[in-house]
Amino acid sequence: MRALQWHGPWDLRLVELDTPRAGPGQVRIAVAYCGICGSDLHEYADGPHAIPVDAPHPLSGRTAPLTLGHEFCGTVVEVGAGVTGLSLGDRVAVEPEYHCKQCAYCRSGSYNLCVSMGFAGLMGDGGMADFAVVPAYMLHRLPDEVSLEQAAVIEPAAVALHALRRAELRLGDTCAVFGLGPIGLLLISLAKLQGATTIVAVDVSRERLAAASHLGATHALDAGALDAPALCDALRDAAGGLGVDVSFEAAGLPATFEAAMQGLRKGGRVVMVGLMPHANFDAFRAVNDELTFTASVGYRHAYGDLLRIVGSGALDLTSIVTRIVSLDDAVAEGFDALLADRTQIKILVSPAKPPSAINA
Amino acid sequence: MRALQWHGPWDLRLVELDTPRAGPGQVRIAVAYCGICGSDLHEYADGPHAIPVDAPHPLSGRTAPLTLGHEFCGTVVEVGAGVTGLSLGDRVAVEPEYHCKQCAYCRSGSYNLCVSMGFAGLMGDGGMADFAVVPAYMLHRLPDEVSLEQAAVIEPAAVALHALRRAELRLGDTCAVFGLGPIGLLLISLAKLQGATTIVAVDVSRERLAAASHLGATHALDAGALDAPALCDALRDAAGGLGVDVSFEAAGLPATFEAAMQGLRKGGRVVMVGLMPHANFDAFRAVNDELTFTASVGYRHAYGDLLRIVGSGALDLTSIVTRIVSLDDAVAEGFDALLADRTQIKILVSPAKPPSAINA
Repeated sequence: MRALQWHGPWDLRLVELDTPRAGPGQVRIAVAYCGICGSDLHEYADGPHAIPVDAPHPLSGRTAPLTLGHEFCGTVVEVGAGVTGLSLGDRVAVEPEYHCKQCAYCRSGSYNLCVSMGFAGLMGDGGMADFAVVPAYMLHRLPDEVSLEQAAVIEPAAVALHALRRAELRLGDTCAVFGLGPIGLLLISLAKLQGATTIVAVDVSRERLAAASHLGATHALDAGALDAPALCDALRDAAGGLGVDVSFEAAGLPATFEAAMQGLRKGGRVVMVGLMPHANFDAFRAVNDELTFTASVGYRHAYGDLLRIVGSGALDLTSIVTRIVSLDDAVAEGFDALLADRTQIKILVSPAKPPSAINA
Repeated sequence: MRALQWHGPWDLRLVELDTPRAGPGQVRIAVAYCGICGSDLHEYADGPHAIPVDAPHPLSGRTAPLTLGHEFCGTVVEVGAGVTGLSLGDRVAVEPEYHCKQCAYCRSGSYNLCVSMGFAGLMGDGGMADFAVVPAYMLHRLPDEVSLEQAAVIEPAAVALHALRRAELRLGDTCAVFGLGPIGLLLISLAKLQGATTIVAVDVSRERLAAASHLGATHALDAGALDAPALCDALRDAAGGLGVDVSFEAAGLPATFEAAMQGLRKGGRVVMVGLMPHANFDAFRAVNDELTFTASVGYRHAYGDLLRIVGSGALDLTSIVTRIVSLDDAVAEGFDALLADRTQIKILVSPAKPPSAINA
């Protein structure tokens, strides 16, 4: 089979491998789609970050080179010994978090905090291949109403849903989303569904701001055209003068974190979704205004709910998909295109189908 | 009447004033006790911080010089026009937060975040006097079971209870308290009542650590004798290896905030109670371990609950009172003693009674 493997920065190789077999407790799927994530781009451009190169990952047993891609779905083509509840031909979305099921975090249900947490497609072989073998616990059968195209975007949508839950956003609340990558845009869709009355989108890209407005943002602020105080004023104005209840930091920049905090009303909350090395904050204001900073990483218990939401027709995840490319073209038309072109948002790699542009 | 007024740093004056009268909506109390708070010490040693010196506070209408003291209680001696529910002779605790009742925060019940928030005794005249006139909304009648000595400590206990609520600490959780001033020690008492199984006290004072153990801390860590990694290890060991569910930062120091974060388990929470200008944190760890930082300022809806808790006999607030001094001796035996002597924890000023040492 074909597989797109990470060998090092700027070194992704489409290789021919023996088709893997499903061992006990595993399932092999024929991959329908695999999205390219921002973390895949980081591994490509300046990795390794999460990819193990020295010691094998404790749950996958793998080190580089390995097959990239953790946002994938497909059809069951082989069921390993001991697997129940899945049959050949089942259409499935992959929830790619490895977890040990034994540590205190797994036992308490917070498996995204597992001491051995990892992702298929980063710490083990992923979905940018004709076939993928994964543990059966990663698979969610798709309802009939959910297409494979929708299922390919469930993974980033789970990141956004988990962040929304960490926000404790309530019906009628106001929020701002800083950083309009796929996660930020999905947050806007989900905040709208949850009944946020004011949803302020903040980015430096006019294309992304336009996409955010299309998805339900009530206000779009161009952070490149406003200095920090003006941005803060505009944000407070949008939220009725006081500031927003919740800011989502989805850019992973200390300056954005600062702005996300400054735009809050008293008692407000920043949800930290983006990764950054260090952050500083005005602790005097944070305490006096009783602010909260809550981090969100990955997801837990989100896939089933998302499949119901999408299945109900309330949410079209493909609205952020700007291109579908073949596995052969994944590097040039996928990875490189995302790095070069801000109008590209989510690109899906399709091993099974010829490339076609949707939403283009 | 006598009143201890703040004129400037190192300039507290015991002066003779006309006894104030209760205007409409106000009540005059004969002060029984008024505790000296850390913020009073700050105003004394390097103020003004909260005391208005240029523009009058919008709700009190006052600027310095004014009468210090916001931790006070007493007996009703005059009831202003329009006040209902209070009678001469009623024993009352004062909840000294001024709030406007009109802003969005007051209307939502979060009156500690009022846009005009202030404290009687900092932004207006307080309790270090023979009499104090306060708005009737500040008063809580004492149950028969609650003594005036207990009532004098309700105010800092309310700060601690509010912080505990911000922590969302649950029965069986583990916690650490960094900084064993009155608030830190009260947090230990309250965390114990709420069923925390592990309560780690952290300070540089052996006397304070001993007091914490007396109040229910299960572990006492001398931060002066351990470097940062050793402190973190000791904290994790105390909490079963993973770290604590909640850390309370009650010292107001960036280094303590850092330690409070390092001692957390994944998914844990730092409650920021102490004031500090700026803080830095390891945002990479915060996001990956899904940490939360929650600030806590003042209190809301805490007095009634505390009066029930104390009235039930479950909590003895006087356990942190180390001395009672007369109004005449308040500066030398109260303020200066607290600055010089770490064995002093909470000193009450008593206008009505001769000085006597309790718990000494």
